[in-house]
Amino acid sequence: MAKVKKTPRPKAETPKGFRDYFGADVTERKEMLDKIASVYHRYGFDPLETSAVETVQALGKFLPDVDRPNEGVFAWQEEDDGDWLALRYDMTAPLARVAAQFRNDLPSPYRRYAMGPVWRNEKPGPGRFRQFYQCDADTVGSASVASDAEICALLSDTLEAVGIPRGDYIVRVNNRKVLNGVLESMGLADDATRDAVLRTIDKFDKVGEAGVRELLGKGRLDASGAYIDGVGLAAEQADPVVAFLTSKGADAAETLANLRAAVGDTKVGLDGVQELEDIAALLAAQGYGPDRIEIDPSVVRGLGYYTGPVFEAELTFEITDEKGRPRQFGSVAGGGRYDDLVKRFTGQAVPATGVSIGVDRLLAALRAKGRAGGAMAGPVVVTVMDRDRLADYQSMVGELRAAGIRAEMYLGNPKNFGNQMKYADKRNSPIAIIQGGDEAERGMVQLKDLILGAKIAETATLEEWKDRPSQIEVPRDALVVEVQKMLDGQ
Amino acid sequence: MAKVKKTPRPKAETPKGFRDYFGADVTERKEMLDKIASVYHRYGFDPLETSAVETVQALGKFLPDVDRPNEGVFAWQEEDDGDWLALRYDMTAPLARVAAQFRNDLPSPYRRYAMGPVWRNEKPGPGRFRQFYQCDADTVGSASVASDAEICALLSDTLEAVGIPRGDYIVRVNNRKVLNGVLESMGLADDATRDAVLRTIDKFDKVGEAGVRELLGKGRLDASGAYIDGVGLAAEQADPVVAFLTSKGADAAETLANLRAAVGDTKVGLDGVQELEDIAALLAAQGYGPDRIEIDPSVVRGLGYYTGPVFEAELTFEITDEKGRPRQFGSVAGGGRYDDLVKRFTGQAVPATGVSIGVDRLLAALRAKGRAGGAMAGPVVVTVMDRDRLADYQSMVGELRAAGIRAEMYLGNPKNFGNQMKYADKRNSPIAIIQGGDEAERGMVQLKDLILGAKIAETATLEEWKDRPSQIEVPRDALVVEVQKMLDGQ
Repeated sequence: MAKVKKTPRPKAETPKGFRDYFGADVTERKEMLDKIASVYHRYGFDPLETSAVETVQALGKFLPDVDRPNEGVFAWQEEDDGDWLALRYDMTAPLARVAAQFRNDLPSPYRRYAMGPVWRNEKPGPGRFRQFYQCDADTVGSASVASDAEICALLSDTLEAVGIPRGDYIVRVNNRKVLNGVLESMGLADDATRDAVLRTIDKFDKVGEAGVRELLGKGRLDASGAYIDGVGLAAEQADPVVAFLTSKGADAAETLANLRAAVGDTKVGLDGVQELEDIAALLAAQGYGPDRIEIDPSVVRGLGYYTGPVFEAELTFEITDEKGRPRQFGSVAGGGRYDDLVKRFTGQAVPATGVSIGVDRLLAALRAKGRAGGAMAGPVVVTVMDRDRLADYQSMVGELRAAGIRAEMYLGNPKNFGNQMKYADKRNSPIAIIQGGDEAERGMVQLKDLILGAKIAETATLEEWKDRPSQIEVPRDALVVEVQKMLDGQ
Repeated sequence: MAKVKKTPRPKAETPKGFRDYFGADVTERKEMLDKIASVYHRYGFDPLETSAVETVQALGKFLPDVDRPNEGVFAWQEEDDGDWLALRYDMTAPLARVAAQFRNDLPSPYRRYAMGPVWRNEKPGPGRFRQFYQCDADTVGSASVASDAEICALLSDTLEAVGIPRGDYIVRVNNRKVLNGVLESMGLADDATRDAVLRTIDKFDKVGEAGVRELLGKGRLDASGAYIDGVGLAAEQADPVVAFLTSKGADAAETLANLRAAVGDTKVGLDGVQELEDIAALLAAQGYGPDRIEIDPSVVRGLGYYTGPVFEAELTFEITDEKGRPRQFGSVAGGGRYDDLVKRFTGQAVPATGVSIGVDRLLAALRAKGRAGGAMAGPVVVTVMDRDRLADYQSMVGELRAAGIRAEMYLGNPKNFGNQMKYADKRNSPIAIIQGGDEAERGMVQLKDLILGAKIAETATLEEWKDRPSQIEVPRDALVVEVQKMLDGQ
């Protein structure tokens, strides 16, 4: 007989850069999304769930971050030389497609929110995943700065709703138009130089003022020892850019005055400053002061992508990083105005503004502050002492469930009782129910308080242990009442 | 100057077979999933969210339905000749991977639920989508029929929790082992014939008893005029199969007796009947009678896939189909025991049982019965009469929102007031707030009851219309109270 070649066993692994979420990881994120959705809903935003898959054509290449490979999507071709399809990499590109596809049916302006996973075909690294959640709110079809101000208020309310107290976060607002005014007033020769300056500004929060000056000038030796070529501006040419980035004053009025000085008499620059002033006034009228939302021209993330106001929400408290050093938690949400996305499809510019919350980062922040995390409450476990009486045990479970109590019967091999208790422990079970033949005859059941038991186990002497105060016997008829009583006392 | 070649505009379309969900479609499904999750949770099942992407290797080919092309997944290869990746096509294959990957960490038995989209690379057709939701509960690591019985009870409770009243559904239970006993007692010569008989049985709910007899024998002319070759059994050889399929009696005892007769003295067959008897007894002890869960050997879906008990939930009420004909709504959930999935990875067989609910079908059923559907309640719309007073209008919105009332300011171009009212109408808004300069001076606002207004518009005379009873003027200070009063009255 010929030898049958064995197929090697498949590896039980997620693809690189992907992960699974268990128990409390899932429920905590869900609770957070529910809270966010409830604020979005109150603000008049409607839910939209687009398909995870789009045509590559419709998706386009609109990744907001500059340092990402151009081909950062998961894509494949339909059979028989069909369309190229891809997983969405954000929620904005599908929104643009929807806004174009359903432009005759949707209300205008169209406020929508979207929550769900997005996928990025990037090199996976520690803590970097290729599937993660985004949670966006956008207003399509409104050119009014009132819609930008609304997004800032929404962001502030949302952060507080999920459990970030006032004072632990700040929403910062900048405006691309102001930067455009600065660049125009500098009289830069060509688009290439402009783009180079834009790319440099984007590094401000990493390299600081001195670094930006070097990069705008001759160049800079970075931390890794590599030499980065500079834009080649003269030192005094860099002044307006640095003035812009550092123009934040003691209050909004001072900041706005600094910005007005930085944009000179350029129309776009003055428009941009006016927009910031209007946004500040609208927010102040609703009571959102600089303790929650402030104008801050040092916000550079996304300035190269957005066309008007830009927003960023930063958590201001310190956490301890992997190396034990304190650091600011940093950004958890960002957004801005982008007026060109729908135009790709229809030829008509449609003004739009919005924000995207990094759900996983926000959840990590709450965990770092001890405001989330911890195991999920487990079920009451009805143990199996006598395998001929499964129906009896299952009836107990049924009664507990009918009373709204999370409960289950042990479904593994009941031979070894120790395994049943180990299982209850692993499930984080609050109570184990035990009924042997003896108890059954007397119409009684044992309730073992596993939370109290664990506490006693930490401190008790052998004598105290033997008294088993954490275990009580109750009539079978009173099972539900007694279990509820024990749960309430825990 | 050389002509610049224009890139054609991308089409604003979802890929074929995909769709978007708007507003109430999203929230209704979410509400249903929340209700299902709450029952699953009460039963002790823990949430698991695996990544949407798996390696093709780990995914395997375990599609339960026979009539699906083998290559029914969306797959692509990682760069540089890397792994082949694919979108999950169900929730079971990822569970098998997780159960193998985390076998040392997970509790055993492991009860988990999973909800989310799955993807099938099938030819799209009317009403057939390539992305849809599944909602599964499975118990991995328990060989006990108590876990099968639990899944049936869970399914019954879940259907009632989402709004299918008792009497409008039935959970039917069959067992692959009983069928194996029947096939064994027939003494079929080879595996090929066995498989052919299995495939034939799978068509029982489409072709009925006479059809199955023809297909087991010489063959059958189907409705389209095509001739389907038969298995080639003699007429009397088909008797045991038909006896099995039609063995449902007046009650469980009679059905079980019929099944015992059909399996002869085969061990596997008798084991299978015993399992059904034990399941029925466990369920009866918890009060799940044949009005909710019954043994029914005519359940054939999945018999070729599962290895033990098989479950199916069917809605028993009639709906009207696209052609106006009444028909049964049919199946909304199915599942069973499958003991081989984890073995692919580890070499060790792990018993598992579970169920998958077709969320979209279930939602369609509720809509068909008028128990879901209808537009989402829109926000109160604060109109803009004077664009210099945006801050005033936005403050009204802020107060309403702070009181938990869904509200927004009109963010489009306010020039044409008619457009603002059209917008409010499209948003399904209950109330429009209006404040012109005159009202502002007097410290008043107008509240327009759009629900009442719509009712009056249907029936009112011109005179009644002019009286505008649906519009009232209230003090600005009382805005929130008066809006809440009007909402309560609607």
